[in-house]
Amino acid sequence: MLLYFAPNSRAVRTAWLLFELDLEFDIQRHKPGDKSMRTPEFRSINPNGRVPVLDDGGTRITESTAIAQYLVARYGNGKFAPDASSPEFPVYLQWLHYGEGMIMGPMSNYVVETLFLPPERRSDEHAGRAFKLMARSLEAVESHMEGRGYLAGDFTAADTITGHACMMCARFGADLSSMPNVEAYVRRLTSRPALIKAREL
Amino acid sequence: MLLYFAPNSRAVRTAWLLFELDLEFDIQRHKPGDKSMRTPEFRSINPNGRVPVLDDGGTRITESTAIAQYLVARYGNGKFAPDASSPEFPVYLQWLHYGEGMIMGPMSNYVVETLFLPPERRSDEHAGRAFKLMARSLEAVESHMEGRGYLAGDFTAADTITGHACMMCARFGADLSSMPNVEAYVRRLTSRPALIKAREL
Repeated sequence: MLLYFAPNSRAVRTAWLLFELDLEFDIQRHKPGDKSMRTPEFRSINPNGRVPVLDDGGTRITESTAIAQYLVARYGNGKFAPDASSPEFPVYLQWLHYGEGMIMGPMSNYVVETLFLPPERRSDEHAGRAFKLMARSLEAVESHMEGRGYLAGDFTAADTITGHACMMCARFGADLSSMPNVEAYVRRLTSRPALIKAREL
Repeated sequence: MLLYFAPNSRAVRTAWLLFELDLEFDIQRHKPGDKSMRTPEFRSINPNGRVPVLDDGGTRITESTAIAQYLVARYGNGKFAPDASSPEFPVYLQWLHYGEGMIMGPMSNYVVETLFLPPERRSDEHAGRAFKLMARSLEAVESHMEGRGYLAGDFTAADTITGHACMMCARFGADLSSMPNVEAYVRRLTSRPALIKAREL
């Protein structure tokens, strides 16, 4: 398997899950937001010029949450996702999708307004609004995580997606001091050896 | 089953799939963006104050893509998603996730800047940027749909999500005249009886 990767991007989620699954893979490394992902060659791999892309023996797949579900279905051996008959199954699905559905939109807007745009085109109003929505999207995680170690029973692929989104919120300055469950959850995730390895790539 | 629903929202996706699956359901109807979704009562159902929410005999689930996967797994009888061993499976997953991952972010920003914000707080620059990104996110759909009727083989749950996102782009003014495949795809979807019924709710 070949993972098209950039540090501090959604590709960390894929590397993390690959390590959790104990699968061997090579990486093609890019810098976050780099021009090397805008070349015709890379565009033939992903027209949107984004990582992660996973190439599994010629099968190419983009979108980190899709890759997570693909890896769990093909290589999970019943681990990392509850069975479809389990009461944790709808819980798993809801929180698997929560990361992109609720957290990443405002976070991306915040990052655009504070990092990607040239300073003269940034807007404090837009940055402030995005920051507020990003923090607010964590409130549902905070109440859900009461009494839970992971999002849906044992550690699952949902934690590599929505858990990673929570970690990114913390990195971009979201104040977790009033969210002890999210804070403990992020600490729990960042102590997992597979994530530590993925962050060192 | 009870579907918490609002017209012209992501809840149409869920109603559409429920009709495709021939499942009976009741709806609790809200106006899009209405205060009735900000009440403590509704917040106890979804803390984010959003539709769709599906209540399946006491099992509550939010996030339209999660609900789609839940319905297909529990009630699809092998239809509406390729088997995990099929070569269409990674294709299905990628395009199932594409709607929220790539299209809905810029579209939401565009809608906020042109409809939700009071006129004095709108920004032409932000609206223009969001509109461009929304249109650009359809380019990968255009090339993928060459020679295809649906996103991944036969009609699947992915079409109710990413197909619906394409339809919303068209509704918000994305110019499909240079995207004949997306245009034909949207026409194909909007002629499906289950979608016609969902849009009439």
